[in-house]
Amino acid sequence: MGIVVQKFGGTSVGSIERIKNVANRVINTVNNGDKVVVVVSAMGKSTDELVSLAKGISQKPSKREMDMLLTTGEQVTISLLVMALQEKGYDAVSLTGWQAGIITEPCHSDARINNFNETRISSHLAAGKIVIVAGFQGVTDDGEITTLGRGGSDTTAVALAAGLKADRCDIFTDVTGVFTTDPRVVKGARKLSSISYDEMLELANLGAGVLHPRAVEFAKNYHVKLSVRSSMVEEEGTIIEEEVSMEENLVVRGLAFESNVTKISVCSMPNNLSGLSNLFTTLAANNINVDIIIQNVSESENTNISFSIHSEKLAETLEVLEANRKQLQFEEVRYESGLAKVSIVGSGMISNPGVAGQMFKVLSDNGIFIKMVSTSEIKVSTVLDQSDMVKAVEVLHEAFDLANVKIPQINA
Amino acid sequence: MGIVVQKFGGTSVGSIERIKNVANRVINTVNNGDKVVVVVSAMGKSTDELVSLAKGISQKPSKREMDMLLTTGEQVTISLLVMALQEKGYDAVSLTGWQAGIITEPCHSDARINNFNETRISSHLAAGKIVIVAGFQGVTDDGEITTLGRGGSDTTAVALAAGLKADRCDIFTDVTGVFTTDPRVVKGARKLSSISYDEMLELANLGAGVLHPRAVEFAKNYHVKLSVRSSMVEEEGTIIEEEVSMEENLVVRGLAFESNVTKISVCSMPNNLSGLSNLFTTLAANNINVDIIIQNVSESENTNISFSIHSEKLAETLEVLEANRKQLQFEEVRYESGLAKVSIVGSGMISNPGVAGQMFKVLSDNGIFIKMVSTSEIKVSTVLDQSDMVKAVEVLHEAFDLANVKIPQINA
Repeated sequence: MGIVVQKFGGTSVGSIERIKNVANRVINTVNNGDKVVVVVSAMGKSTDELVSLAKGISQKPSKREMDMLLTTGEQVTISLLVMALQEKGYDAVSLTGWQAGIITEPCHSDARINNFNETRISSHLAAGKIVIVAGFQGVTDDGEITTLGRGGSDTTAVALAAGLKADRCDIFTDVTGVFTTDPRVVKGARKLSSISYDEMLELANLGAGVLHPRAVEFAKNYHVKLSVRSSMVEEEGTIIEEEVSMEENLVVRGLAFESNVTKISVCSMPNNLSGLSNLFTTLAANNINVDIIIQNVSESENTNISFSIHSEKLAETLEVLEANRKQLQFEEVRYESGLAKVSIVGSGMISNPGVAGQMFKVLSDNGIFIKMVSTSEIKVSTVLDQSDMVKAVEVLHEAFDLANVKIPQINA
Repeated sequence: MGIVVQKFGGTSVGSIERIKNVANRVINTVNNGDKVVVVVSAMGKSTDELVSLAKGISQKPSKREMDMLLTTGEQVTISLLVMALQEKGYDAVSLTGWQAGIITEPCHSDARINNFNETRISSHLAAGKIVIVAGFQGVTDDGEITTLGRGGSDTTAVALAAGLKADRCDIFTDVTGVFTTDPRVVKGARKLSSISYDEMLELANLGAGVLHPRAVEFAKNYHVKLSVRSSMVEEEGTIIEEEVSMEENLVVRGLAFESNVTKISVCSMPNNLSGLSNLFTTLAANNINVDIIIQNVSESENTNISFSIHSEKLAETLEVLEANRKQLQFEEVRYESGLAKVSIVGSGMISNPGVAGQMFKVLSDNGIFIKMVSTSEIKVSTVLDQSDMVKAVEVLHEAFDLANVKIPQINA
């Protein structure tokens, strides 16, 4: 008899009916003979409602008090889910983050988990109870209530699975698994039966949005076998684990893309040691998140540096650059909006050096112009015109044969 | 510089606007030079909304999970009130029941406070912060979240005031103070400038409803100077304290009344040692709350016992009696509904033995028939026809001169 951790997100517990449905899913797992720990988020829109209450009082409420406010959301869900399980005759108990032993760093709104004291959960499990834990929240050593930031409930689930040495951690969500690319855009998109932690990390960072990167990182570090599956539909999801049971010969495993990219070029900066560092520490200090960075090779006194940002940060970025023009000593800033980023991801690339070239060829064969390129060991990202994005994704999906791979049997 | 504890109930924090208003009231006290601890309830209807979520899942949810659910209500309020204070430039911090050190007995939905560890609040006060505490909730030694039952926020406030040795404890509510009787019913009802703990206890138990009896008891035991006042209107309230600054010669201080009383008579029970005890332990075991009890003097083998209950418990009471007829060995049950209870309260009665007789005379002079009587040292209760209730209250209010007493100056 093993331990299984199951996480249900806000949509899955968005109404009384859905909470009852989640209770049934949990009961199925219990009836399979496993001890079950369930992590839940706040009900559907309840976080938005709480945020709007706060906004009625302050445009910039303190992070500590926002944590105090928002953590009530999951606390409502855990109690309701326990009631639903008890109503069906199952013994269950709810625990808030602090009760569950989730200890975080002393930092509000985006704290990392420092420690997990499993005593209380373990003793409830030993007593035969289903344990329902509030996701997204923890407590500091000083008894301050904290939250884990975006995707925090995923992180809670993985941390519990790691600490309890669970057999697996099921992330129930509103999609049926991890796809080769977004099925709403590409008709041939196919659900992957398995994917490695690193590939998932690249896909998560690129906006595939199924799992929070921090949760995947945590799972990787503690060897937690993750599964992503639908809370609504009964079907196998995607297993995320080390390099096992992978589809044969699948060099590229997935395709990520995002629109609203702007390329900024800072021209004729002094080509010295501190130029690059000055520029990006200035941007970071102003909370401007930079994605791809390209510095042109140059042996002259001056150099050009390009980087990409989310388009909504354009005005702010230009303002910050202008305000620091004297310190940064550049001559001119150029920018180009209306761009998109398309990336291919796959751990097979490491041993297949031709993949990037193949990607560029497919795009150029289809008349798509590449404006920026960035690569890692298991990823190639390109920036191109937003109007070319969907076409690029489609032709790449086809070229890398993502839709047609025979799926081997997975032992989930 | 003293410490003042202020409590604001659900109506007073029922909306964003009202929370801002409470922030202003608190700031006034702070600007007077006091250190302030504020206790708040859940926002207006939010408890009802939470209860209705629970009822959507279970008609009889577990008490532990109800506590888990309901305590989110005050947690929302404390964070919003702190935001409102911070928005106005005041340093404040919110604390849940467990963070504030409110330790209760291990019992859900109606726990008593066993202990209050003031360390955390005191250190925040020492740091110059306004401390906002979630009322109605506590935690057991084992880290289980509990609630204090009806009027629990009053109890929290008084417990904090006692533990912090506060100068006073202000209970802000939707009335301007404690009245000689219900001003919605009796036009001449007058706000009392002060009242003793014991008188307040009798009035609270009789349904005056301004303060929970448990809070008054607590205040009495720990000599906490209580004040009841309006959160909406700026005016002096009523001080509740030991026998000080009382109005002269006011034998009767207040008049309480409630309708929907039913008198039950259990006839021809065996007149033995265990009869009375059997009857009322049986009723208590079935959660039937009995108010006035009268046993007729009798030297025969059988006796009649009468008691009053709330009319909504009538059907249940009859059922319980019928089910236990054999054990209780009575012959017949009679009942009379449509009754009311009218009581006079005043600590001056102890040294004025004629007060009860005066009350009965006033009622009979006005043609009002008394069906049951019960007395304590500072209270006389009568049960009479509900149709006579308002008239009884009016004539008693006048006869005991409650409207016209000269109010002495109180040093609040």
